[in-house]
Amino acid sequence: MNNSEQENRQIERWSLLELTIPGPDSGNPYMDVTVTAEFQHGHRIVKVDGFYDGNGVYKVRFMPDVTGEWSYKTMVKASDAHEGEAAEGRFVCTPASTGNHGPVIIRDERRFVYADGTAYLPVGTTCYVWTHQKTELQEQTLQTLAKAPFNKLRMCVFPKRYSFNMDEPEHFPFAGSREEGFDFSRFNPAYWANLERRIMELQQLGIEADLILFHPYDKGHWGFDRMDAQTDELYLKYTIARLGAFRNIWWSLANEFDFMATKTMDDWDRFFRIVQENDPYQRLRSIHNGTKMYDPTNLVVYDHRKPWVTHVSMQYWELQSVSAWSRTYRKPIVVDECCYEGNLPHRWGNITGEDMTARFWEGFARGGYVGHGETFLHPEEVVWWSKGGQLHGESPERIAFLRQLFEDMPVEAAELDSFRDAPTIGVEGEYYLQYFGIHRPGYRELPFPEGKRFKVDIIDTWNMTVTELDGTFEGHSRIELPGRLYIAIRARRVE
Amino acid sequence: MNNSEQENRQIERWSLLELTIPGPDSGNPYMDVTVTAEFQHGHRIVKVDGFYDGNGVYKVRFMPDVTGEWSYKTMVKASDAHEGEAAEGRFVCTPASTGNHGPVIIRDERRFVYADGTAYLPVGTTCYVWTHQKTELQEQTLQTLAKAPFNKLRMCVFPKRYSFNMDEPEHFPFAGSREEGFDFSRFNPAYWANLERRIMELQQLGIEADLILFHPYDKGHWGFDRMDAQTDELYLKYTIARLGAFRNIWWSLANEFDFMATKTMDDWDRFFRIVQENDPYQRLRSIHNGTKMYDPTNLVVYDHRKPWVTHVSMQYWELQSVSAWSRTYRKPIVVDECCYEGNLPHRWGNITGEDMTARFWEGFARGGYVGHGETFLHPEEVVWWSKGGQLHGESPERIAFLRQLFEDMPVEAAELDSFRDAPTIGVEGEYYLQYFGIHRPGYRELPFPEGKRFKVDIIDTWNMTVTELDGTFEGHSRIELPGRLYIAIRARRVE
Repeated sequence: MNNSEQENRQIERWSLLELTIPGPDSGNPYMDVTVTAEFQHGHRIVKVDGFYDGNGVYKVRFMPDVTGEWSYKTMVKASDAHEGEAAEGRFVCTPASTGNHGPVIIRDERRFVYADGTAYLPVGTTCYVWTHQKTELQEQTLQTLAKAPFNKLRMCVFPKRYSFNMDEPEHFPFAGSREEGFDFSRFNPAYWANLERRIMELQQLGIEADLILFHPYDKGHWGFDRMDAQTDELYLKYTIARLGAFRNIWWSLANEFDFMATKTMDDWDRFFRIVQENDPYQRLRSIHNGTKMYDPTNLVVYDHRKPWVTHVSMQYWELQSVSAWSRTYRKPIVVDECCYEGNLPHRWGNITGEDMTARFWEGFARGGYVGHGETFLHPEEVVWWSKGGQLHGESPERIAFLRQLFEDMPVEAAELDSFRDAPTIGVEGEYYLQYFGIHRPGYRELPFPEGKRFKVDIIDTWNMTVTELDGTFEGHSRIELPGRLYIAIRARRVE
Repeated sequence: MNNSEQENRQIERWSLLELTIPGPDSGNPYMDVTVTAEFQHGHRIVKVDGFYDGNGVYKVRFMPDVTGEWSYKTMVKASDAHEGEAAEGRFVCTPASTGNHGPVIIRDERRFVYADGTAYLPVGTTCYVWTHQKTELQEQTLQTLAKAPFNKLRMCVFPKRYSFNMDEPEHFPFAGSREEGFDFSRFNPAYWANLERRIMELQQLGIEADLILFHPYDKGHWGFDRMDAQTDELYLKYTIARLGAFRNIWWSLANEFDFMATKTMDDWDRFFRIVQENDPYQRLRSIHNGTKMYDPTNLVVYDHRKPWVTHVSMQYWELQSVSAWSRTYRKPIVVDECCYEGNLPHRWGNITGEDMTARFWEGFARGGYVGHGETFLHPEEVVWWSKGGQLHGESPERIAFLRQLFEDMPVEAAELDSFRDAPTIGVEGEYYLQYFGIHRPGYRELPFPEGKRFKVDIIDTWNMTVTELDGTFEGHSRIELPGRLYIAIRARRVE
């Protein structure tokens, strides 16, 4: 691209600008050469790190967040050079097109929101190492996701070695191989190119990539779980430089961080600091636990109250705790793992579709967010939870039903503490959604305010039906219920 | 009864000897007259308090616990008299007849046992105020219990005012009436006579009476929840004197003690002390919580580690905690309330039979004990949980199936910590019972010891089937499972 092309360049708000910059390819450019850029809009300057992409090519990626004229300067500087080589350019940031709502940010203590103000309720699933599978399987995963109700996907940078995950991937984030050893001072651009392509494809499907930066499912097999501190930092900075500008990136510091014997709590704090200092966009940051829960008497676990944590990412099987966690953390609660629908021998991997659906409802009705995952035994060990492929369970269509109902709710809906015995979300005097789960009351008395009339629907969350009751209700009202499991009541004020 | 009759008296071990003693009926004999007795066997002397039963009749009750010759002295003394009136007698304690195993006592940190060494696994239910109902209903409750699998019943001394419990009983423990006021210095013998009859009928059915001494379901309607300290003590001593000799009595200091606003923690400790000091048999003692759980940072709850507590009586809906409670308390764990099978509007009163059965299995497979209760809406508000009557639910027959399986287990079976991911009870190398509950693994790998052969049964705890697998298993074994809910594996060593 020549200068005049760059001058006339137009880039949509919240999309990815990529500048390609030639530079030295001798020595180890990953270590020896620094690429930086400054993007300017009015008086505001955003500093961004570039990265080496192999073959003498350096790149800088940038996501402009306001429309209008931007200018930039790039700088390529070898560590042994006195001065670097600078270049300049301009571009125009145009308004976002339909379907581009910008990155997801924190709206308040309970909610996320897209940067353009559109509500975002995370409805996640996991395909932890789908980008490490054969191309055909990756394509199938995308086809499945295109029809599924999920708008967030948890996925790992590093490959996974674990039950049902014993195959070797083709590409690794670092140069080298397991047999001949990895060169932890050099990355493998082919690996990253595929990862980026997949992240962009998720973006096109409206799916946030909740990218897991470390995990324990290695145990020295490749050694990515036990790199030295310098390598960890190099890896984090490289990842941020390559991927931070994708508007659908979230940083998950780890999956099951407490199962990583080689990292200390100081390491996790340091990793958060590195991410926070190097990410010009301040993408969402959290960390996901193994068994240990936060407990005021047990500070061994990661404390999501720390200021650099943007939201809570939790593994726990019991969703009633969402209410208490909200009060403790005062940040949005995402239960990213609450067991998996399936029939694996592992305890965490064999709950029913009914149970998975009920856990979603229990968490959402308390103002939290719940993540799906699926683990059915498969003749070729293609298990969605980890590798992607196809979905076989009964919960996804119910999760789609839930997502629609919750997205239709007033945006200011929040957990209502006035109903202590059944999780209830809504807006006092205007809107109530109350979920009974494994409880099956024969009727329910609700204290609607006097002088306001409500239409009431009985929602069967499993059979996905909404049955509007005749007439309207006002004041203390008795609502007859079907006496089945997994029922919710929705009441909406009418004029 | 004259002296010569008393001389030849024979009384079966662990049964009830009742001595009737005439005395003054002027003034207030409940307050003014003290009846005591000393029962002697060899050099051992047991001191027992008697009580006034109205109409100038005093009684002393005694349960002899060893066979052979006993002698006794009674003493009736008015508070204004210098000396009391004494009498003496003898009796022979004969061996217990079939079906009389004696009182239930603590065997060890996890288990109860009858005094004769027969295993006792508490399988309880609740009919909190069944003895306060009309006679016909009390009789029906007994008929139902005769066919039910329960060997413990939680029941209250005081009547209950609560949802579905708005009728007035005919008799009260104290003299007087709600309309004209109760005389808290006098008891009502008619009330106690009925209570005792019912406790004895339970004994004949092999059912322990887990008698609840205080509860909050009064709120001043009758005032039994807010008596003064002196009355509380008088009441406790009278209750012990009347009922302590029944071998099937347990003392439950309260139901939902933490919901009683008028009592402090010091009161509860004091009540335990009064019971401990006055009960010559040291019947089992515990106390049952409302919402608050024991938490090392929250000493507001009652701490079952206190030495006068013989076993843990817990209300909690989640049975996985049994394992942790066992480690904390080192006493048998009885989850006396884990929600009720039924369809009441109340959250605690509307779980399914499947769920109730699963909670039993989850608790028993961890070496604890779980209590049943039932709360179905009824046109006349006769709800088993509180009033007794008939059972309507699906869990009792499954609980009978469970009880049989657990009673057939080796008596030394205990929770096996080696299986952390599924509750397992058994004897290492000999016997294993592992329960999967809401988990439905497609198969299960079990590390049987090498050199020992095991027969394996698949137990469907809901459909009540035991399916023996072909052949025997040895060493690391894969067990195919049906992939349904509520399955257990039983493995027994064969020679």
